Amino acid sequence: MDLETLSALSIPSTSKIVMFVIDGLGGLPFEDGGMTELERAKTPNLDALARHSICGMIDLVAPGITPGSGPGHLALFGYDPLKYQIGRGVLEALGIDLELDPRDVAARGNFCTIDDKGLITDRRAGRISTDKCRELCLLLEKIELEGTELFVRPVKEHRFVVVFRGEDLRDELTESDPQQIGHPPLRVEPRIPEASRTARIVNSFIDQGRSLLAESRPANMVLLRGFSRHPRLPTLPRLFGIRAAAIATYPMYRGLAKLVGMEVLPTGPDISDEFKALTENFKGYDFFYLHTKRTDSLGEDGDFEGKVKGIEEVDGYIPSLLALNPEVVVVTGDHSTPAALKSHSWHPVPLLIYSKWCRPDSVKEFSEKACTAGALGRLPAVQILPLALANALRLTKFGA
Amino acid sequence: MDLETLSALSIPSTSKIVMFVIDGLGGLPFEDGGMTELERAKTPNLDALARHSICGMIDLVAPGITPGSGPGHLALFGYDPLKYQIGRGVLEALGIDLELDPRDVAARGNFCTIDDKGLITDRRAGRISTDKCRELCLLLEKIELEGTELFVRPVKEHRFVVVFRGEDLRDELTESDPQQIGHPPLRVEPRIPEASRTARIVNSFIDQGRSLLAESRPANMVLLRGFSRHPRLPTLPRLFGIRAAAIATYPMYRGLAKLVGMEVLPTGPDISDEFKALTENFKGYDFFYLHTKRTDSLGEDGDFEGKVKGIEEVDGYIPSLLALNPEVVVVTGDHSTPAALKSHSWHPVPLLIYSKWCRPDSVKEFSEKACTAGALGRLPAVQILPLALANALRLTKFGA
Repeated sequence: MDLETLSALSIPSTSKIVMFVIDGLGGLPFEDGGMTELERAKTPNLDALARHSICGMIDLVAPGITPGSGPGHLALFGYDPLKYQIGRGVLEALGIDLELDPRDVAARGNFCTIDDKGLITDRRAGRISTDKCRELCLLLEKIELEGTELFVRPVKEHRFVVVFRGEDLRDELTESDPQQIGHPPLRVEPRIPEASRTARIVNSFIDQGRSLLAESRPANMVLLRGFSRHPRLPTLPRLFGIRAAAIATYPMYRGLAKLVGMEVLPTGPDISDEFKALTENFKGYDFFYLHTKRTDSLGEDGDFEGKVKGIEEVDGYIPSLLALNPEVVVVTGDHSTPAALKSHSWHPVPLLIYSKWCRPDSVKEFSEKACTAGALGRLPAVQILPLALANALRLTKFGA
Repeated sequence: MDLETLSALSIPSTSKIVMFVIDGLGGLPFEDGGMTELERAKTPNLDALARHSICGMIDLVAPGITPGSGPGHLALFGYDPLKYQIGRGVLEALGIDLELDPRDVAARGNFCTIDDKGLITDRRAGRISTDKCRELCLLLEKIELEGTELFVRPVKEHRFVVVFRGEDLRDELTESDPQQIGHPPLRVEPRIPEASRTARIVNSFIDQGRSLLAESRPANMVLLRGFSRHPRLPTLPRLFGIRAAAIATYPMYRGLAKLVGMEVLPTGPDISDEFKALTENFKGYDFFYLHTKRTDSLGEDGDFEGKVKGIEEVDGYIPSLLALNPEVVVVTGDHSTPAALKSHSWHPVPLLIYSKWCRPDSVKEFSEKACTAGALGRLPAVQILPLALANALRLTKFGA
């Protein structure tokens, strides 16, 4: 059901929903017949909660599709990630807490190396330091463009974000990054006639950048891709009359939450700080998105035992969540990050939905194997939001 | 698969399908760890049938969405309830056995109370008696409208149905009911230019109604909503070459069955009468929709034990159904009505499909928990019809 149809079913309620997203939760066994990280972890609190919940396995985008953090989170928030796509430039801007204006066009930039003939020899400029990147961004930010404000901000190593701010800018542009070495950077072309002026402005930035960087080999050129604008998503408060809050320590997740109309709550860097923020703000909101990142990072590092311990640490905070007595609790992840693969993966992610009205199934523990037998079956993640709202008695019936 | 594509696969057969819809079948335990109504009920006949069937859990509209009876039944009949939406006016007309003509525009009416300033003080006119409603409907039916026949019929308490019959009437109209008190009734506006004349006719009805009702406080005004026309659905006989019959004691279900081309069979008011009608008419049709309502009413009343007994009573009729030797038997519900919620709910509903060709699964009893482990998994209800037709050997293969 699309969001506007769902919105029409929305009714007021005072009940509260907490969606706890354990980043990269799903895993894989290291050996055939072995256990996943979650299966190995001792999670008495999540297991007890699962016994009173309805469980299942979610596909964030579709079976076989490995979700990026953007699509993964959009799906958790109820937005079809194939319909609502967020450009790379916007995602990178969110990732460094850069506030976007509706007039902005953002792009992801790479510093790269070109040779005397102008051919790319290294798309990442030898992964220059982040300090060097910051210095070069300050240099590029001095570029002057016709009727356009410019923001050039470092991300990490050779990566940066550029934001063009002005009237009538368009993001229907081809990319300058040919994605391979031995080729020259490409001219940015408009993909529709209305984007011609923006293409000229962007190409002027690239040309001026080439001149300014001429002496700073290996970072003597820039590549731009993922031109995109603020997606102006319908917001959760408008759609469902809920005051929604986000608690996350990484900028990208806070940015994604802002895109769907959540307020970002201040929090310290640790998971204990995040739960403190949840407790302190519990009265003020109806919907909480609570994100913990460490499990994903440990999976990306290939640290199976570390991820097991990370999950066990997370489990220890479940009682403090339940002590707040939210009417609905959702626990899941935005994708799997098996240590065995050291990366995001396509594997579905365990899900539990707890409420007084959830009709508990026979699942006795929170794990991939157990949740596979849950009464929710294998479901698209976009179905979580309607289920959570239903369990919060925040939806009226469809049709008479 | 859409209905027309499915229709193209239809092949003749003499086999018979009985779809037995136990209204509000799905339930909830009253206490954590407890049993649902169906789990508690002793249903030896349904359990035995489940052991020879393939089972699953259906979502009528979508996970988390509570179906009204209209969308719930359309889904059971194979019609995507998000694609085929039936207006409130039409549903209300069906609900009082009012036959609709293709020229008709139907609306749901409320008698309401307005104050001296014309502001609504009670949207339900103090829930006047049905007798009073009938009397006022007779009064309103005297209204004369330009080239338009008028039917005003009581439903229950303050509720009535109005049908405008004439050439070129349109249902693209805004509603007169502001859905809140302290506001005046709204003018009905055309949502497309072609509906302007109909809007004038409807507003004339409302204006004349206000005059006629001036002295009959608290019911001194009318509110109209859900303007809609007969949806002209593709019919089951045309799509699948089946003679389809409906056995139901409530007008709305008979009306829904008529919309999809079923013939409504005469029946007495009790479930025993319905099974008698099934037996007597068994030779004459290929597809039977058999509806029992009592389980839903008991759920709406919050009567857990009553619903348990109601289900047990239903179970007692299964042998007489099987004695007819239908090739395919479908048993399910149009939505859950947990006594704990006293209302329709979003929870999926148990389903069994019995035939000689069903490939039985390991399900040993007909209940929410057991059917969750069935081989059909959790499936959208629109998939029942193709499965039933397939099991009746009424579908040929798709593609060469």
